[in-house]
Amino acid sequence: MATNKKAAKKTPAAAQSKAKGKSKAKSTFAGPVDLGPDHWVWGEGDEIGAGNLMTPDSILAALEQVKKGEIIDLSHDVAMGNPSIPPIQLPYVMTLSSTSANSERMIRNGFGAENGIGFYLERIEMTTHVSTHIDALGHATIHAELYGGIPAPVGADDFGLCHAGIEKAPPFIARGVIIDVAGYKKSKFLKPGYAITPADLEGALKRQKVSIEKGSIVIIHTGWGHKFWSDPVTYAHGYPGIGLDASKWLAAHEVVAVGADNMALEVFPCEDPKVIFPVHQHLITRQGIYIIENVKTDEIVERKLWQSTIVILPTKFRGATGSPVRIIALL
Amino acid sequence: MATNKKAAKKTPAAAQSKAKGKSKAKSTFAGPVDLGPDHWVWGEGDEIGAGNLMTPDSILAALEQVKKGEIIDLSHDVAMGNPSIPPIQLPYVMTLSSTSANSERMIRNGFGAENGIGFYLERIEMTTHVSTHIDALGHATIHAELYGGIPAPVGADDFGLCHAGIEKAPPFIARGVIIDVAGYKKSKFLKPGYAITPADLEGALKRQKVSIEKGSIVIIHTGWGHKFWSDPVTYAHGYPGIGLDASKWLAAHEVVAVGADNMALEVFPCEDPKVIFPVHQHLITRQGIYIIENVKTDEIVERKLWQSTIVILPTKFRGATGSPVRIIALL
Amino acid sequence: MATNKKAAKKTPAAAQSKAKGKSKAKSTFAGPVDLGPDHWVWGEGDEIGAGNLMTPDSILAALEQVKKGEIIDLSHDVAMGNPSIPPIQLPYVMTLSSTSANSERMIRNGFGAENGIGFYLERIEMTTHVSTHIDALGHATIHAELYGGIPAPVGADDFGLCHAGIEKAPPFIARGVIIDVAGYKKSKFLKPGYAITPADLEGALKRQKVSIEKGSIVIIHTGWGHKFWSDPVTYAHGYPGIGLDASKWLAAHEVVAVGADNMALEVFPCEDPKVIFPVHQHLITRQGIYIIENVKTDEIVERKLWQSTIVILPTKFRGATGSPVRIIALL
Amino acid sequence: MATNKKAAKKTPAAAQSKAKGKSKAKSTFAGPVDLGPDHWVWGEGDEIGAGNLMTPDSILAALEQVKKGEIIDLSHDVAMGNPSIPPIQLPYVMTLSSTSANSERMIRNGFGAENGIGFYLERIEMTTHVSTHIDALGHATIHAELYGGIPAPVGADDFGLCHAGIEKAPPFIARGVIIDVAGYKKSKFLKPGYAITPADLEGALKRQKVSIEKGSIVIIHTGWGHKFWSDPVTYAHGYPGIGLDASKWLAAHEVVAVGADNMALEVFPCEDPKVIFPVHQHLITRQGIYIIENVKTDEIVERKLWQSTIVILPTKFRGATGSPVRIIALL
Repeated sequence: MATNKKAAKKTPAAAQSKAKGKSKAKSTFAGPVDLGPDHWVWGEGDEIGAGNLMTPDSILAALEQVKKGEIIDLSHDVAMGNPSIPPIQLPYVMTLSSTSANSERMIRNGFGAENGIGFYLERIEMTTHVSTHIDALGHATIHAELYGGIPAPVGADDFGLCHAGIEKAPPFIARGVIIDVAGYKKSKFLKPGYAITPADLEGALKRQKVSIEKGSIVIIHTGWGHKFWSDPVTYAHGYPGIGLDASKWLAAHEVVAVGADNMALEVFPCEDPKVIFPVHQHLITRQGIYIIENVKTDEIVERKLWQSTIVILPTKFRGATGSPVRIIALL
Repeated sequence: MATNKKAAKKTPAAAQSKAKGKSKAKSTFAGPVDLGPDHWVWGEGDEIGAGNLMTPDSILAALEQVKKGEIIDLSHDVAMGNPSIPPIQLPYVMTLSSTSANSERMIRNGFGAENGIGFYLERIEMTTHVSTHIDALGHATIHAELYGGIPAPVGADDFGLCHAGIEKAPPFIARGVIIDVAGYKKSKFLKPGYAITPADLEGALKRQKVSIEKGSIVIIHTGWGHKFWSDPVTYAHGYPGIGLDASKWLAAHEVVAVGADNMALEVFPCEDPKVIFPVHQHLITRQGIYIIENVKTDEIVERKLWQSTIVILPTKFRGATGSPVRIIALL
Repeated sequence: MATNKKAAKKTPAAAQSKAKGKSKAKSTFAGPVDLGPDHWVWGEGDEIGAGNLMTPDSILAALEQVKKGEIIDLSHDVAMGNPSIPPIQLPYVMTLSSTSANSERMIRNGFGAENGIGFYLERIEMTTHVSTHIDALGHATIHAELYGGIPAPVGADDFGLCHAGIEKAPPFIARGVIIDVAGYKKSKFLKPGYAITPADLEGALKRQKVSIEKGSIVIIHTGWGHKFWSDPVTYAHGYPGIGLDASKWLAAHEVVAVGADNMALEVFPCEDPKVIFPVHQHLITRQGIYIIENVKTDEIVERKLWQSTIVILPTKFRGATGSPVRIIALL
Repeated sequence: MATNKKAAKKTPAAAQSKAKGKSKAKSTFAGPVDLGPDHWVWGEGDEIGAGNLMTPDSILAALEQVKKGEIIDLSHDVAMGNPSIPPIQLPYVMTLSSTSANSERMIRNGFGAENGIGFYLERIEMTTHVSTHIDALGHATIHAELYGGIPAPVGADDFGLCHAGIEKAPPFIARGVIIDVAGYKKSKFLKPGYAITPADLEGALKRQKVSIEKGSIVIIHTGWGHKFWSDPVTYAHGYPGIGLDASKWLAAHEVVAVGADNMALEVFPCEDPKVIFPVHQHLITRQGIYIIENVKTDEIVERKLWQSTIVILPTKFRGATGSPVRIIALL
């Protein structure tokens, strides 16, 4: 697939050195927010961002590290009652629209069918930001600009994104790293409002004896996922997550995607009450790095499987701002 | 994942020999339909059927045959205007529900946000049987029985399948084989109503110098997919596809899943006008073999890439009768 | 309209005398529930029930009592966040699907339009049992039988009711009577679980110096409606309402429809914990009397306008089990 | 209801005389479109437009002319397959979401219910511009301005209209006049693209011996409605209807609402190919006169019931751009 081919050579060196510099700066979050270096790194008109880091070579390398053929599922079911934040995230509804009994009758009466065939089908009403899902690069905006500096009136119409919709996202096959920040902080789960710092990430990785390589998919375990099913309202309205500095630290490590076992990857309430969801702006809109939310991390953390090969295949809903996904870790 | 572990030992030997016998029988399709050996092969209460054939060993073997890290996308976009067959398959609708401009205003007014953040989100109304998708084993029934002999009133309620919904399907990683039947028949595409026979499959495989191994995912190229976008109404209301004998032949080869570049995998109008969609009954309901529809086969056929490693990760819509998917072939 | 013409002569005399007898019986609710006389009164195949009581003469009489031309609106808005009881009543969702800006651009680009025309349109996902609404006679069942003794498999298919759907309901124009039971009980609102009795109805009517005539639409004020907007969750999960005896008393008065300012007309939790929603069964399924829910009664009660002419025009959603409505009282 | 009270005194005299002048002007449609006098006539911030013409006196007068109590239904069913114009008008979908059998089981198992109660409910996905419906005054825009001169960014947000949504529309009770233009032109139906002129309206009214009074609801019979069910695609993509001059003529007669038995009231293809749907702009956005579409006119025309009292009660979908309605004519 062509999207994989233009890859690694145009490594955003300047951007990275600048970003790396930032990550060493003090974490005093103040003043007008600095969302980090801009999104120009992959070239004008680019729609896949850090997806460019995945090349045939990197994919092959990721697959070659699979040693057992075992699969860990990192996905929750998509189901009614899943956490949501109306009115921006509206509820998920699914009902049966075709039943075996009725369709069997229809087919028998309509075609004279003698083989007793019936079908079940369902009707789903949803946003793509339901349960375990990945965000499209066009999902978030900074002062009405999408990823790539595209102005909002050009970047979307009534029927979805015209730029960087989820159908443009590549298949994801990359080295996966789980960072157990809850474990590092010696608690079952971090508290809502706790902003994970670069030091937390570094400390946790050191404890796990793992490092992040360029082109990785990083999944952060906050422990907050234990409320996904048991208390979806609490789960969705405040959570631990990464702070802006941690997102810059991750971007400086040239990751492809970052996920967590929470609603928005980033912490909420936000670090600065006047700077809402800056990690989305920094990672998606500026850096072209994909965000994954509501990741199911319990099993993989319990088994301390810190390194794996992660595969994510977003459904190509044209113009959609994300996709619910089945994420797997291969061992 | 546990579902992979109980695998290969309980190979359905008896069932297979019986099925193989059938496949050698004459293809005169007549009399009361014989849907083939029953679904008991994977044990009572089983919900993954031929998914049991995928084991850590088979997955590892499939991944090891990837040599280049190249990805061919076998999926169409999910989009308004996609082929559908109302009223059983109802139309796909997607519109933007959250716009950058409005959500930026809401967040600024509601939180005092100074970072100009806005979000796009969409609202989708759909059945899972839209565009490139996989059927759940509970999708089809024979005289009101689902896969596993589950009676309809037990197998589903108003909110979806209680048995063999798509959330039960395993991740699919298997050796993939493309069978170019259109090429074998020396035409750009087969005609609607043409029922592909076991002889066609054997002839095409011989021409391609490829064989089907146990546990493979087979994708059949009829050429009909060229009408998917250009003429979705014609595409959806009559098509070439496999006949019942071909489906038995495939089942006898112990495949995991079978797909095609058409609406239903199987031929329509049906071979016997009084036996409607028998391949669904045979493959899904009796054999527990997954069906994949509306596969995008043009590129992989044009490049004659007959063998690959196919990965399909159905989204776990709980109780759903299928899932739109991003299917990839790894080379 | 033909439906009005076959009316009053076949007054269900026997049924009524039996029902009236019941209403005088003691209110000790016990034993196997007696849902009252059966639904045969309007003749085999009837689909409009007490709608038959509305004749040209009764309509003319109702209109002639309008003296001022003033309208009182008895309807709440239909809006997101309205009370609902999932999973049977699923949430209401509305978003804009066509915006002025985008449709103006489409029409300008597509047609060369120079008149700057744009359109707003919305997308709604709903059940008809949302906000102020009327139930179709096919909405409720008794041991799988709909109104008219129609067995469930005949009375509905996957796409809605085949019998007594809301499109069959007549336009409603009838004498309206408001019964202020909260006022009679000297409280702002009755408590959840309070079952209004025939004695309450009689006492309230006496206090108001009003009587119920055959063919009336009766609206009961419990006061519970004050929570419709302020606390929809509490509103929807327990409420005062009429008990089974009161519903029989109303049926004995040959009313066309009964409504209240609560979720289900009838009391919840139910009088007998093993007899759930018996008033629906008695009124709709047995008597063919329409039920109206979530009526906005505050203004009309505050102004003590006990008698009026009520008009309800259910939208003819084919096969639907009800319709959200704009109910007006004419003075 | 307050909305009726501020009425007739502020009759838009100046506007009307200007409009009347226009209607006498020659019908040569050319040059930059003249959409007629502006929308200021009902005062700043007004949201009901010509609804102001309905006063207690006018309502009483309309009701007093009802002599028989007979009802003619002017509404089609709302059903799947109804005409629509995607992507602006997206398709109507309705399926059962709650079935008698399943809800009976749920209630029995959940509550121990012994009374065999079950419920049917449905799930509807729709735009309000489906089947017989009325447009809200906020539905159409002129160069990004809504009715009342409200700029688009103020007049709507992601969840609907903030100004002149259908929940603001009053109940409609007014003298109704049917104009049989097809009959006047001696044909069963007018041809698509035929633009009805003021002369046509005047001629038809003269033939019918009827006149239009201030405050009337006018329904125009083009005959095109015969294709509503038989050929919805043809019905929706070209139709006879009123031209811009006829709409000005109607506005000059100070009508409350205008409807027709076609898709858009106004003719399509449009008179001037560069002026798309100007009647919507003139009537709704400039004059505040309501438009009613897909009216069922066959019975009332066949019976030559030219005058009646029309009642329309739009459901108060908050922020919606219209409402499907049950329209009745009272005789």
